[in-house]
Amino acid sequence: MATLSPEDLLAQLRWRYATKAFDPAASIEDELWATIEESLLLTPSSFGLQPWKFIVITDPATKSLLLPHSWNQHQVVDCSHYVVFAAPTDVGESTVDAWIECLAFYRKVSPESLAGYRSVIDGFLAGLDADARLAWAQRQVYIALGQLMTTAAVLGVDACPMEGFAPAEYDKLLGLPERHLTATVACALGYRADDDNYATTPKARYPRDEVIETFA
Amino acid sequence: MATLSPEDLLAQLRWRYATKAFDPAASIEDELWATIEESLLLTPSSFGLQPWKFIVITDPATKSLLLPHSWNQHQVVDCSHYVVFAAPTDVGESTVDAWIECLAFYRKVSPESLAGYRSVIDGFLAGLDADARLAWAQRQVYIALGQLMTTAAVLGVDACPMEGFAPAEYDKLLGLPERHLTATVACALGYRADDDNYATTPKARYPRDEVIETFA
Repeated sequence: MATLSPEDLLAQLRWRYATKAFDPAASIEDELWATIEESLLLTPSSFGLQPWKFIVITDPATKSLLLPHSWNQHQVVDCSHYVVFAAPTDVGESTVDAWIECLAFYRKVSPESLAGYRSVIDGFLAGLDADARLAWAQRQVYIALGQLMTTAAVLGVDACPMEGFAPAEYDKLLGLPERHLTATVACALGYRADDDNYATTPKARYPRDEVIETFA
Repeated sequence: MATLSPEDLLAQLRWRYATKAFDPAASIEDELWATIEESLLLTPSSFGLQPWKFIVITDPATKSLLLPHSWNQHQVVDCSHYVVFAAPTDVGESTVDAWIECLAFYRKVSPESLAGYRSVIDGFLAGLDADARLAWAQRQVYIALGQLMTTAAVLGVDACPMEGFAPAEYDKLLGLPERHLTATVACALGYRADDDNYATTPKARYPRDEVIETFA
């Protein structure tokens, strides 16, 4: 297996930080970006339902439109690729229909043969009202955010997760409501500017024993 | 930098799957586990607040107690390390106090000098009621889940994320309510059993163009 050594993994996770200043001239090259997209697509999700849409923005005009609704954080415009993670607001029967069809295709079986599995998913969703379904989908989206940030770190790409934006404005600008989607979180990716002092600010984390408890 | 090549990263992300059957005899060795814990600690979070506690269970007796409250999914007992991700139910002023103190320590400044930053966090939390604060903390927890699963994949460790459990029962068994915590999601880690057919089941994902939209 082509694994990463424990030392190298930790070196990359310590190298990463929430990039405050991106080098606006530094673009992620196409092949590397294709890997990052593929990693997003491979993100695990509950039941495999993939309740998300990833909106990738490199267009300067679109970035500029989002900037005032992003607490004017310049990462939005200075990064190479800006990803908005949207969650579906209409999780329900058609979500499960689509997934069972996809699964049947890959497994080369009929959708009907997956009826038992389907009923487990239906049962799960039946226990959630519309708000709880959206909350569930949004939590899945955060798995994708986690996978994206870890992926970027091990590839040597800088990233800055972004919660500080006005979702309703993003939704409007990106045409999300008519597609039953809502902006949930975002992430700017690219390369740090040479003069970003945050790159060398010590990483602050609670001590292990405050965060991890062991039953051994 | 000690990065992973794009091909190797994708190979590992394709190698991973939600492990259904763990080899109960295969343990993650201590040094490798320490790396996985360190990766959990390094997980990014909103404002750096780290609103989580990771409960690591290797004790067979505790695992057995959790099994009936986990839809009897045997990963709970057969895995090497079972991690329960708990979120705080009392996010508030003391959460911010602790974080500002931690940050001041690492930056070698006084907590008072971070008053401006603090007011941004206070302002953010002031806009959320108790339910929304918990939902926010739980979303952060899912970043840690994402980082953990990606970390495991690049290290060659198997994992199975677990949402199918009774949080109230987990809370009781792990003594979480008295510490203002609630079980949010879990993840079993270890090594796949030789006879886990799911290991070779084709990975089912929606086509790129259904999931990714580009503004370029």
